[in-house]
Amino acid sequence: MRECVIATYRLGLAASDDLDKKAKGIALGQTVGAWTPLQQMDPAVWERHRGEVLSTERPAPEIGIVKIAFPTANCETDIPSLLTMVFGKVSLDGRIKLLDLEFPAQWITKFTGPKVGIAGIRELLNVPARPLAMAIFKPCVGLSPAQLGEMFYPLGSGGLDLIKDDEILPDLPAAPAEKRLEACLKSIGRIERETGRKILYALNLTGPAGSLVQRAEELQAEGANCFLLNVLSYGWETLEEIASDPRVKIPIMAHPALSGALCASPEYGMSYPLVLGKLMRLGGADIVLYPAHYGTFPFPAEDEFGIRDALRKPWNSSEHLSPAWPAPSVGIHPGMVPRLLADYGNDVIINAGGGVHGHKGGPQAGARAMKQAVDLALAGQKFDAALPPGHEELATAIQQWGIK
Amino acid sequence: MRECVIATYRLGLAASDDLDKKAKGIALGQTVGAWTPLQQMDPAVWERHRGEVLSTERPAPEIGIVKIAFPTANCETDIPSLLTMVFGKVSLDGRIKLLDLEFPAQWITKFTGPKVGIAGIRELLNVPARPLAMAIFKPCVGLSPAQLGEMFYPLGSGGLDLIKDDEILPDLPAAPAEKRLEACLKSIGRIERETGRKILYALNLTGPAGSLVQRAEELQAEGANCFLLNVLSYGWETLEEIASDPRVKIPIMAHPALSGALCASPEYGMSYPLVLGKLMRLGGADIVLYPAHYGTFPFPAEDEFGIRDALRKPWNSSEHLSPAWPAPSVGIHPGMVPRLLADYGNDVIINAGGGVHGHKGGPQAGARAMKQAVDLALAGQKFDAALPPGHEELATAIQQWGIK
Repeated sequence: MRECVIATYRLGLAASDDLDKKAKGIALGQTVGAWTPLQQMDPAVWERHRGEVLSTERPAPEIGIVKIAFPTANCETDIPSLLTMVFGKVSLDGRIKLLDLEFPAQWITKFTGPKVGIAGIRELLNVPARPLAMAIFKPCVGLSPAQLGEMFYPLGSGGLDLIKDDEILPDLPAAPAEKRLEACLKSIGRIERETGRKILYALNLTGPAGSLVQRAEELQAEGANCFLLNVLSYGWETLEEIASDPRVKIPIMAHPALSGALCASPEYGMSYPLVLGKLMRLGGADIVLYPAHYGTFPFPAEDEFGIRDALRKPWNSSEHLSPAWPAPSVGIHPGMVPRLLADYGNDVIINAGGGVHGHKGGPQAGARAMKQAVDLALAGQKFDAALPPGHEELATAIQQWGIK
Repeated sequence: MRECVIATYRLGLAASDDLDKKAKGIALGQTVGAWTPLQQMDPAVWERHRGEVLSTERPAPEIGIVKIAFPTANCETDIPSLLTMVFGKVSLDGRIKLLDLEFPAQWITKFTGPKVGIAGIRELLNVPARPLAMAIFKPCVGLSPAQLGEMFYPLGSGGLDLIKDDEILPDLPAAPAEKRLEACLKSIGRIERETGRKILYALNLTGPAGSLVQRAEELQAEGANCFLLNVLSYGWETLEEIASDPRVKIPIMAHPALSGALCASPEYGMSYPLVLGKLMRLGGADIVLYPAHYGTFPFPAEDEFGIRDALRKPWNSSEHLSPAWPAPSVGIHPGMVPRLLADYGNDVIINAGGGVHGHKGGPQAGARAMKQAVDLALAGQKFDAALPPGHEELATAIQQWGIK
């Protein structure tokens, strides 16, 4: 019995296309074959390494759905080698999209997956059950470390659990990561002294080629308690390197930067649930950001929920992997919280930018509104009824942005 | 005067879309802004960091072409940071494709670019002027190092200049890179003793996260003279790390694996000339493989020639960067050589798989046919006329596959 990864593809077809032949072309072309019959290898070896078409379906004349089994004997146990095997060259061969990958149970145990995960972050924050709330620094590029540190305090003291760098803020001379960290740690310390609450600051991990793990260790030594990583910009190799390094102990928040380039087309590329769900979790992300379907970016609901499930649920053979946090984002405001909790339950990080900073009462009021929204929604209170006293900030947010 | 990278985007539009507003949304959203008006920063700082719309065009009601200037003050000098700035989050915002990037002259000097390049590889091979010919191992996955070493000899002795691993062959227990290298170096040594000719073997560089530079150095110490790298699988960071490491001195051949996922859609992702041309050269690839438009993959001619030009010609401010080798591939056979030389001139690597291995006389005859094709085309001989004596292998190849 061969151990195989199963890949599901969507092919765009012309009426005259022979789907079975195309499927076989992928199965052999990505494993043992070439475009003309060549010198044959030992039949037993051919058998061990050949790809196999498991099924073909043609739900419409112009669409083919194909499942192909690839022996794990053909790849190493990392995402770059896996993706080269299942979608390297064939990604260039016409209208083809990689929809899903299923992994064999034994093989997946070779991946570390999320080191901190849902349970670990709940422990770090000392929040055993409720949903978490997060805000982004807005604006971010152009601010000094002191300004960012000052912006941190009202957000955190207003009740948020995590605050993240904007993904577009790298290590600029006017705001180096060390200085941002130092400034935000001051606010974290102050909030902890005042309230006893812990807060995570997702510090954008960037830097010259080859230095990122060392940089991660240095920043961790200086007190960093969470990293933001633009995984698709820096590469899967970088995520896996940092996540699998036992010296890096703090959570990794994966940003979806560039994922639209890879996933947004219905006919080409790879699916969002595969890229931002399964592969991020396999590669070791503890938190993954992505657009909510009712936010300001066009994003299909099925992709949002596909990512959610791939991050949290046991999927084919993922029992070994810790669940990771879904963090639906982009255009989130307090009036959306009941809907978010209905869709996600409690294991969700609700992430807002303008929906906190744009609050008429300022960012601290915005943070309070978000925390009030979470607590009130958890208590089952409807937002369109009169709100109980002490929820003035939420009332203002609902007045500003409505309920969605 | 701000130093800026200029990004050109194609937007898919609805009739009611306001293109100027959308363009401004990108320019501000990817730099200083957010989706609601927030606390303003110092006007001078805002000015230093804000993106600026340079032009908008609407060649058709449903298409917008937009040029936006991004200050280099907003990013580090590497490809991951650059791509996050110009296409990170906005890649998720509807139908948008990044067509091109133009770089400021001073900024580009901070990139190493190709270390060996066209001139360096000509020196290594001692081939001052003519086009180079290359073959892939076919089949590859499943063969032992000894079998690959045996396959190497007829290809090299038949007249090819480079022989490359298949990109789908990683470091498998039955054929580890060290053993493949050892076996192929034997054939390289034998051919050099017999003919005085040097041959490059593009060894597929793969390995666990974080080990690739060290692995490159080890393999180089064991005699490797060229690496194949699946750049988009391993990430830009990996290419830049290896290319910019002064200890790695041998050329890097970039494989286009996964590039279809990023580039094939007309409406999403990034253009082929940007990804496989400009960015590969900027990142330090010495040779780049990609499909020829008359090969077996559907590939637009303008993308092929766009890549060619981006690799070799001075583009906006690329004077600092060495030119890199274009290596058109996929379904190439000897009868295509006159056309390839007309399209490329002499600075091209002609790469064949089945078009060498599938030759009726076997791989050595296939290699001879390819070398004869190059020499004869250089001499201006038409392939549809009677071929001079000593070109029997080419005649057979033309009989098999025709002239294209």
